Amino acid sequence: MHSLTFTKGHGTRNDFVIVLDREDMHDPSPDEVRAVCDRRAGIGGDGLLRAVKAGRIAEWDGDPDLWFMDYRNADGSVAEMCGNGVRVFARYLADNGLADGPVIPIATRSGVREATLLPDRRVRVDVGTVTVEPGAVKVTAAGLDQAVPATKVDVGNPHAVAFVDDPAVLDLTRPPVWEPAEAFPAGVNCEFVRIVGERHVEMRVFERGVGETLSCGTGTVAVAAAAAEREGVAERPVTYRVDVPGGTVEVELAGGDGVEQAFLTGPAVIVGHGEFTLPEG
Amino acid sequence: MHSLTFTKGHGTRNDFVIVLDREDMHDPSPDEVRAVCDRRAGIGGDGLLRAVKAGRIAEWDGDPDLWFMDYRNADGSVAEMCGNGVRVFARYLADNGLADGPVIPIATRSGVREATLLPDRRVRVDVGTVTVEPGAVKVTAAGLDQAVPATKVDVGNPHAVAFVDDPAVLDLTRPPVWEPAEAFPAGVNCEFVRIVGERHVEMRVFERGVGETLSCGTGTVAVAAAAAEREGVAERPVTYRVDVPGGTVEVELAGGDGVEQAFLTGPAVIVGHGEFTLPEG
Repeated sequence: MHSLTFTKGHGTRNDFVIVLDREDMHDPSPDEVRAVCDRRAGIGGDGLLRAVKAGRIAEWDGDPDLWFMDYRNADGSVAEMCGNGVRVFARYLADNGLADGPVIPIATRSGVREATLLPDRRVRVDVGTVTVEPGAVKVTAAGLDQAVPATKVDVGNPHAVAFVDDPAVLDLTRPPVWEPAEAFPAGVNCEFVRIVGERHVEMRVFERGVGETLSCGTGTVAVAAAAAEREGVAERPVTYRVDVPGGTVEVELAGGDGVEQAFLTGPAVIVGHGEFTLPEG
Repeated sequence: MHSLTFTKGHGTRNDFVIVLDREDMHDPSPDEVRAVCDRRAGIGGDGLLRAVKAGRIAEWDGDPDLWFMDYRNADGSVAEMCGNGVRVFARYLADNGLADGPVIPIATRSGVREATLLPDRRVRVDVGTVTVEPGAVKVTAAGLDQAVPATKVDVGNPHAVAFVDDPAVLDLTRPPVWEPAEAFPAGVNCEFVRIVGERHVEMRVFERGVGETLSCGTGTVAVAAAAAEREGVAERPVTYRVDVPGGTVEVELAGGDGVEQAFLTGPAVIVGHGEFTLPEG
């Protein structure tokens, strides 16, 4: 039996258990990740963020002095990146004197992401590129009378963004269906969006393989990009306010040569820390 | 902003945040309880157990040297007793040197409950009296072809215990319905039970006002009492193994003069401890 010193934090209710392992002394097994992230018999979280000096990570060939965010999903699988996770990770590093702000570059499996600490516990993070893709798709969800047109967006992962009158009436306990089926052979994250006002949208999201979630960083970026296209907003940079069930974030679309850069700004809060005893066996 | 030192534990996945407040220095507000028990922005738990010296509790007129279990539900409301909570509370007291085992009397709003520490991290607790009540009731749940007869049981709170072929097929996302409606004017906890073997049952439970839960201490006692009556088991003491979705417990029916005493034995595990920062405002 051994124990683990942890910190817990969240960004728009997307929550994480954070573990400091500077010298890469302990690569957690999927069983250990599941035990820690278990919401009843563990500490509970959507994922585990392990802080390791990048030079200790074999697959990393960049600056060895950066902090590497080793992200695991609650089911124990390895994940590349998480826009909400990077914000909470940056806040953790700064709160614990492990990095100086306000700008903190963070090594991830998707390369270096720059996080900037802002007032009011908000953190802004570079979430990479976003592309609105051509192609006509439609999405249906329980609560819609008929299939509605959706915008295809790529944010490193695929999204289908549907504009609807009122996302609140949908039943997202069942997965949405899209057509043509071959548009997303590996599945898709589906966002249902209402235009609230100028540069202001509200959304619900069904994450592929997960279900409805309270917040999805790449989903908010996809929605902002789809809204800008729908509204014919050409100015750059442009910032959208995006309300998700777990809170509010801002997405900045910064333009670029051929590929558009996106930045996500939102709260990142550390709520506690302690010691967790891993179950035996 | 202030912080709170906590311990977290669970019994058959019924989980609790435990706070030591020996001298009753801080009576937590409903907002504070909800913040701590929030599974994403807090530590997360079905309830908060505050450990206070009984002599500090105005409503307590028994032995002032006992530990009082001040139990709050996750929604901030005050609760009287919780069979799984008392087990975890006893384990906490013993692990932290606050009480000597193996027998630990615990003051609760329902009087003194005696907890006994057993091997394999199990704890046995006196859960008071249980009465199988006369009266014909029927219960229906989604997934049942028709209403089925149920046994009325009182364990300090009301239960309707229905024996079915396979509890697994039921849809308990929707509340069960009982008839006649006036049998339980204040609502009822509904258990759906399958006889697995001799003195061995498995069950699912729909707790009134909550929904389906992974474990319900009084529900397991109600089920054992109903099974003994159904099977015509007159010997006392008699012990039933009860499988709940969150694990396995044992219920002992000990007989008594007119009112039957019941004891609940099951795992009680402390999983971690730490410090939680209460949100501002």
